[in-house]
Amino acid sequence: MKILVTGGAGFIGSHLTDKLLEEGNSVVVYDNLSLGRLENLDEASKNPNFKFVEGDILDREKFWNVFKTHNFDIVFHMAANSDIAKSHANPDVDFDNTFKTTYETLLAMKEFGIKKLVFASTSAIYGEAHVSVDETYGPLFPASHYGASKLASEGFIASFCENYGIQAWITRFPNVVGERSTHGVIRDFIKKLKKTPDCLEVLGNGMQYKPYVYVKDLVDAILFVWKNTDDKINYFNIGVETRTRVKEIAQMVIEEMGLNARIEYTGGDRGWVGDVPEFSYNLDKIHKLGWKASYTSNEAVRKAIQYILEMDKCSL
Amino acid sequence: MKILVTGGAGFIGSHLTDKLLEEGNSVVVYDNLSLGRLENLDEASKNPNFKFVEGDILDREKFWNVFKTHNFDIVFHMAANSDIAKSHANPDVDFDNTFKTTYETLLAMKEFGIKKLVFASTSAIYGEAHVSVDETYGPLFPASHYGASKLASEGFIASFCENYGIQAWITRFPNVVGERSTHGVIRDFIKKLKKTPDCLEVLGNGMQYKPYVYVKDLVDAILFVWKNTDDKINYFNIGVETRTRVKEIAQMVIEEMGLNARIEYTGGDRGWVGDVPEFSYNLDKIHKLGWKASYTSNEAVRKAIQYILEMDKCSL
Repeated sequence: MKILVTGGAGFIGSHLTDKLLEEGNSVVVYDNLSLGRLENLDEASKNPNFKFVEGDILDREKFWNVFKTHNFDIVFHMAANSDIAKSHANPDVDFDNTFKTTYETLLAMKEFGIKKLVFASTSAIYGEAHVSVDETYGPLFPASHYGASKLASEGFIASFCENYGIQAWITRFPNVVGERSTHGVIRDFIKKLKKTPDCLEVLGNGMQYKPYVYVKDLVDAILFVWKNTDDKINYFNIGVETRTRVKEIAQMVIEEMGLNARIEYTGGDRGWVGDVPEFSYNLDKIHKLGWKASYTSNEAVRKAIQYILEMDKCSL
Repeated sequence: MKILVTGGAGFIGSHLTDKLLEEGNSVVVYDNLSLGRLENLDEASKNPNFKFVEGDILDREKFWNVFKTHNFDIVFHMAANSDIAKSHANPDVDFDNTFKTTYETLLAMKEFGIKKLVFASTSAIYGEAHVSVDETYGPLFPASHYGASKLASEGFIASFCENYGIQAWITRFPNVVGERSTHGVIRDFIKKLKKTPDCLEVLGNGMQYKPYVYVKDLVDAILFVWKNTDDKINYFNIGVETRTRVKEIAQMVIEEMGLNARIEYTGGDRGWVGDVPEFSYNLDKIHKLGWKASYTSNEAVRKAIQYILEMDKCSL
């Protein structure tokens, strides 16, 4: 199968690319390298069925050229801004990179008659839900511009499906951790502790409680959903049943670094504006389909900490 | 109160403007007159508290100038493309006029510190729901780009509320009929029958079954919701409990025109791509708040037919 992966040099996109190649597909990665990194594609680059094109989705001429050159069977649209806190100061960050990229991808698919789309959506569309949310939860009032951009993306995916006979697989991710991540709470803590090994400042009260899924589990789930469902619009929460508190992450990081640091909380129930402090996912739908994560939230977090520390050692 | 009404020269926006002026407010209407008409503001123009500015919301300099000149207490954002079928051929019609206008309105509110927004949303965000939808219905997969654009708008309204302390009143309209409407099924039927008075061609099988609300009832409800709720995000379906089939509309138009035309159906369950053939609204939330429509769906449709025929007579 001939596949386009947008954002394929990024954290999740590169793992997806590796897996798609491993399964014998031809993969073209289109990425502007704003957050993605070429080194994430080191393995992929050895495969003759792989091609990388550096470019921005909002550069319509360049993007459409890729569709002209290749006859794609399906698009995996993974490109997005992944630094959710960033767009509080400037909403255009998510408007352009998280939403407009989706709209442009849909326009290109319409133009070139591509009929299948797998989309990286998010739990952030549910906003501050105080219950365990399943896929039919409403109302959808996202707290962050990132969540708004993904909800807007889902909306247009639906209307493009109806108007132009496109089929979509919408997979909604919680926090994702593991190899190749570029930012997030774990990296923040490690960075802080390197500067001040005796004290870790934690934004908020440390009680934020969310599920963290391991990146390879996530990629596995995306492909599982795509291969095992065939509705016009297929939509699934992907995640783990367990959750991890921010204070537990802090403790694990301190432990894995072999430190004896005290933790200082800045207070308040959230780390930044647009943060959702408690979040719980109902995963019945994907469980019924036959998929479960192999790592718990705590295991995924610890694995991610160990990986980052190992990488840091190598780069010394 | 000093109020900005975007799209205030349009069908619904102009009725809203009249009512806001009647209640003693100062109103600035900003409208690009693409669908709106100055004659809709004939009454308003006589009021010293009224001001009209011709301009496009996407012309940021011009739009921001209005915010610079006036110190608004609240924005009623009514501007949108209202011809839902139109964007099947070109999704940008709704992307630009229905969604981007909302995003630009939010950016202007952020820039100028305006903290209150009343928004014209739509039943089209619910897509093809096969049940009576209440305000928490999900998943939200709109069939039209118009619905997608309104859903995208709601998403960003929510994130702007959370990020910048804005308060919003989201009112979701079904089909709206009455004085000053510019298009829709009633006008189509009248136009067709003037050309061929013995035969009316109806797109689809005539069985489409939806609620039609009278425009003055709608405006009454918008203001009622705004005045009687005070959450961060207030969201309500607005409508009538009754519904009207397209074939009934056809019969009423023929009757009111004093004709004896036969009806020919083109077949299929919908009139155009993106149409939702059956739609039913759960109105418990607004009823509990204390508001009910004064006209039934059939009464609203008949009233609208009579008005258009009367207007046509005058313009002869």
